[in-house]
Amino acid sequence: MRSEFDFIQNIKKKFGLDQIGDDCAVLPKDATTDLLITTDLLVEGVDFRLDWTVPEFLGHKALAVSLSDVAAMGGEARWALVSIGVPEGLWVGDFLDRFYEGWHALAKELGVEMVGGDVSRSPGGLVIDSIVGGEVATGMAILRSHAHVGDLILVTGDLGGAAGGLRLLNDGVRYDDELPGWQKKLLRKQLTPWPQLDNALVVTLDDTATAMIDISDGLSSDLAHICEASRVGARIDAKRIPINAQLEKLELTEDAKLDLALNGGEDFELLFTASKEKISNIDEELFSVIGEVTANAGMIELITNDETRILTPAGYRHF
Amino acid sequence: MRSEFDFIQNIKKKFGLDQIGDDCAVLPKDATTDLLITTDLLVEGVDFRLDWTVPEFLGHKALAVSLSDVAAMGGEARWALVSIGVPEGLWVGDFLDRFYEGWHALAKELGVEMVGGDVSRSPGGLVIDSIVGGEVATGMAILRSHAHVGDLILVTGDLGGAAGGLRLLNDGVRYDDELPGWQKKLLRKQLTPWPQLDNALVVTLDDTATAMIDISDGLSSDLAHICEASRVGARIDAKRIPINAQLEKLELTEDAKLDLALNGGEDFELLFTASKEKISNIDEELFSVIGEVTANAGMIELITNDETRILTPAGYRHF
Repeated sequence: MRSEFDFIQNIKKKFGLDQIGDDCAVLPKDATTDLLITTDLLVEGVDFRLDWTVPEFLGHKALAVSLSDVAAMGGEARWALVSIGVPEGLWVGDFLDRFYEGWHALAKELGVEMVGGDVSRSPGGLVIDSIVGGEVATGMAILRSHAHVGDLILVTGDLGGAAGGLRLLNDGVRYDDELPGWQKKLLRKQLTPWPQLDNALVVTLDDTATAMIDISDGLSSDLAHICEASRVGARIDAKRIPINAQLEKLELTEDAKLDLALNGGEDFELLFTASKEKISNIDEELFSVIGEVTANAGMIELITNDETRILTPAGYRHF
Repeated sequence: MRSEFDFIQNIKKKFGLDQIGDDCAVLPKDATTDLLITTDLLVEGVDFRLDWTVPEFLGHKALAVSLSDVAAMGGEARWALVSIGVPEGLWVGDFLDRFYEGWHALAKELGVEMVGGDVSRSPGGLVIDSIVGGEVATGMAILRSHAHVGDLILVTGDLGGAAGGLRLLNDGVRYDDELPGWQKKLLRKQLTPWPQLDNALVVTLDDTATAMIDISDGLSSDLAHICEASRVGARIDAKRIPINAQLEKLELTEDAKLDLALNGGEDFELLFTASKEKISNIDEELFSVIGEVTANAGMIELITNDETRILTPAGYRHF
């Protein structure tokens, strides 16, 4: 069966849509500013399960995933819309009020204005489309396609936490204030990811980042997207991948933890490339250097203790 | 059960979202231009049925309903995104290619650029979110809230055709090139509505229109939205409502035809108000004067041969 990625490539080619394929669309706004636009569709049973979250968390996440796309372009988020298809059972009761509470709390904290949306009945499950608009200085949006051979590869924060949270959910753990702190942290990483808008501003200072993407599908897949768009390869060092500290508590093997960090997805950290010269300008505590861009177009090599092996993108795919 | 309208009012009030509630959000773009943004969620089984349409028509309609929102603000459409949640059964085969063919044919004809979107799996039915961006001169967006007492009330085109098409679909008629012309016209009015972007430019010339909305829910409901937003009333004359000519063939009573025109919805014609003085500036063949704005806030009166009665909004509601 064709993949979602193949499908989008096909549509792009057929209709000459060269612009499509980054985290946001980039459109001219005024003499000094470009407009960023992104849309993310969240479908019950695919992107979330109602019994795994609470309405406030879901509202937060719906907005956060699109804010993360604006961060991935090096932009600042300005406004948002949310369209929601609601099963009749959720129309009664407080679900929607609580959903918007969560959405709005994040919007308020990050200075994002709700400007519109749509609401419809849904005979199937809950469906949410999250649309965010942002801004970036003209021509300064950080695309996936400008990584250069020799650039370093970096990530913000740590990886695998959202996948660890998903594992807890799969094991029947549900968010509760009484849970141990490490479980709450993993669950919150999965259920209420934080968009890296502040870090995005740091890495765009002084044109530091050459290419950027947010880690939604998983490090292996999202790095492959950068390599594909930039026609480069990558070599990353397993030892340097920042693995979420709470994963220790899950008592996994080192390989299993590395797998969550490489392929787990939904951490919504930023993955970016930058020249070695520029990196010294940014605070290294905020970022981890995990590897280097190579000339082996399309090939991602993973260095472990024993060997260097070819990494196959294994992050999330809808089809 | 609370209505969709009450729900939106509640959200607006709770979060201080005074801007929400027109066909598009209006945001400053540059020194001379405002940006218009709209999103419309189309859900299978609620907003469309796959066995009632063909993929190209559905692609057309998904874009058209959002373009119509830009027209309703007096704007020009510029770009669009489409997010689509796809059941597995539609992922194979040519459904999606044909959907995008239809979408793209309309976009091309109206000079609208596809700039992005999202695609997800859907365990329920097909779900489409259509997002369109447009432009209007700064401060010149035509809101629902600026109708004045004494303004005339006008519509573009004719009404009831989309509802007539829906009636044919309910009776088992399906679109086919071999159908009689009148049936094809009614079905196309329902399945491939045409956004009134050209007429929107005409009625905004010389500041003619004071308030405007597109007829999506139905004349009675959409006129009520203008009255509510403008804190005015309306008196319309049944004889002056332009009823779709093809409805003759359905052999309905005069009352039944009037009902389709008043409450049928989805004609995506423009409903607007304008001062009597300005109306002479526009081509009367394009528009029908159907009544007048009154001071009876919230009350819509319908003049028929026999009587003047209070019209209750009876257009489409999701809940």
